[in-house]
Amino acid sequence: MPPSALRDLRGRLDLCCINTATLGYREPIAVTAQRVAAAGFTWITPWRQEIDERSPARDADAIRAAGLRVRHYCRTAAFAHDTAAGRLAAIDDNRRALDAAAVLGATEFVAVVGGLAPASRDIEESRAQVLRGLEALMPAIESTGVRIALEPLHPFYAADRSLLNTLAQAQAWCGLLDPEGRYFDIVVDAYHVWWDPLLPVSIAEAGPRIKALHVCDWLRSTQEPLLDRGMMGDGVVELKRLRALVEAAGFDGLVEVEIFSRDRWWREDPDEVLRTCRERLQTVC
Amino acid sequence: MPPSALRDLRGRLDLCCINTATLGYREPIAVTAQRVAAAGFTWITPWRQEIDERSPARDADAIRAAGLRVRHYCRTAAFAHDTAAGRLAAIDDNRRALDAAAVLGATEFVAVVGGLAPASRDIEESRAQVLRGLEALMPAIESTGVRIALEPLHPFYAADRSLLNTLAQAQAWCGLLDPEGRYFDIVVDAYHVWWDPLLPVSIAEAGPRIKALHVCDWLRSTQEPLLDRGMMGDGVVELKRLRALVEAAGFDGLVEVEIFSRDRWWREDPDEVLRTCRERLQTVC
Repeated sequence: MPPSALRDLRGRLDLCCINTATLGYREPIAVTAQRVAAAGFTWITPWRQEIDERSPARDADAIRAAGLRVRHYCRTAAFAHDTAAGRLAAIDDNRRALDAAAVLGATEFVAVVGGLAPASRDIEESRAQVLRGLEALMPAIESTGVRIALEPLHPFYAADRSLLNTLAQAQAWCGLLDPEGRYFDIVVDAYHVWWDPLLPVSIAEAGPRIKALHVCDWLRSTQEPLLDRGMMGDGVVELKRLRALVEAAGFDGLVEVEIFSRDRWWREDPDEVLRTCRERLQTVC
Repeated sequence: MPPSALRDLRGRLDLCCINTATLGYREPIAVTAQRVAAAGFTWITPWRQEIDERSPARDADAIRAAGLRVRHYCRTAAFAHDTAAGRLAAIDDNRRALDAAAVLGATEFVAVVGGLAPASRDIEESRAQVLRGLEALMPAIESTGVRIALEPLHPFYAADRSLLNTLAQAQAWCGLLDPEGRYFDIVVDAYHVWWDPLLPVSIAEAGPRIKALHVCDWLRSTQEPLLDRGMMGDGVVELKRLRALVEAAGFDGLVEVEIFSRDRWWREDPDEVLRTCRERLQTVC
């Protein structure tokens, strides 16, 4: 797939989106939204901790007033727990988030499914709990009109953050839960999947299920796995190759920047971060 | 697979092996070998930095004098480089290691294949360089009688340590390079593979190719990916389940302890580490 087959992102910030994690959640969503809009973007993906879910309409108004639209909403509470009460509470919490996502106008709620139940080593049982939790949200998906986008996380996070670890696994789960493709989609995040030897095959098979593309970069000498992600172009991921793969598979959604970078980008002036994102999106992505 | 199908390791330290990484390479191999033997073990897997490869017979003698036999030898130099000269130097280096492994009496030389070529982002090309490097070692495997055991490393290490990241990929490489199974085997290391959703399938398919089982544990809140591995039983890996899978697939080799633990076990008295390994091998592995 030559880069020429790619959509040209130059001058097309309308094809891009800023995930607020990139700015480190340092300011209220209204301020963040103003900065994102001022940088030339029209799409934003906020996180739950930035939204008052008791009255999300106010935050929705603030985002709209800045001139932005909400693409996705991040992210689910963990599904696997040691008690049935814990599992039910997680499902309830995720239902509330779907309601808030609907008010925000998000097309999808991103699922980071959680790791092993806290006192468990049983990976099969915890994965089964995740599947049952996702299944339990299907009526709420139907009633809110907000779909759930399953995001496979890097295998490093299997114990404590996500037992969904590859695109092939996400595709298998979609097939199990939702063969007709009415409830669940898939997020491809460069950081989580770039290493996967099955990447081209898995992307081709997921095809139209892929509804989100997250970009950042994997730094060659990553210091720690959570908050040391790189700006696009600063690491080893061939981002254009990845985008060519998902676009060849039918993806025509937004290229969304999501960078967790405690010691580098979260210390930078937010406007400078957004300027850098804007430039890199149009050159190296 | 119920645990009852497992080989019983109680009183069977002859089925176990100590990889010297577990002790942090703090002492000369002769001293380490004496400690390992004094703890009741009969097998050891040393690392290259402990062996004088210009005259490995002396180290081989010291290990034998302690009453031990060498199982494997760790580990290959990285195969992917930016220049042809770099790639040839790596192959030469690995040939020297195979010679030393033969003198030590190791049955296998462990391949940790290396990450991306230092100046490259091209993951496909670097993986191709690894395959060509492994292929170039086949005559040396034949002449030394020491096979190469391919160890898939956790995907966290893809950039800088290993582009071989899953058991399915190792099996595919074996099929490409060596369909008759004369040169290459596979190492299953609990730390690297425990998260893999395809684990049962991949182990069944690798079957008799699996010639080594490395155990340690994945700590739930791992601080950093290289040197924070746990003692068996201290983390989240179902080690008996893993061993049941490989034994059901035909594995009848040694259970080898390999723990990289800079801030915990490498600071402990080596004899205490070995006592703990002995106990945990017979209880939680």
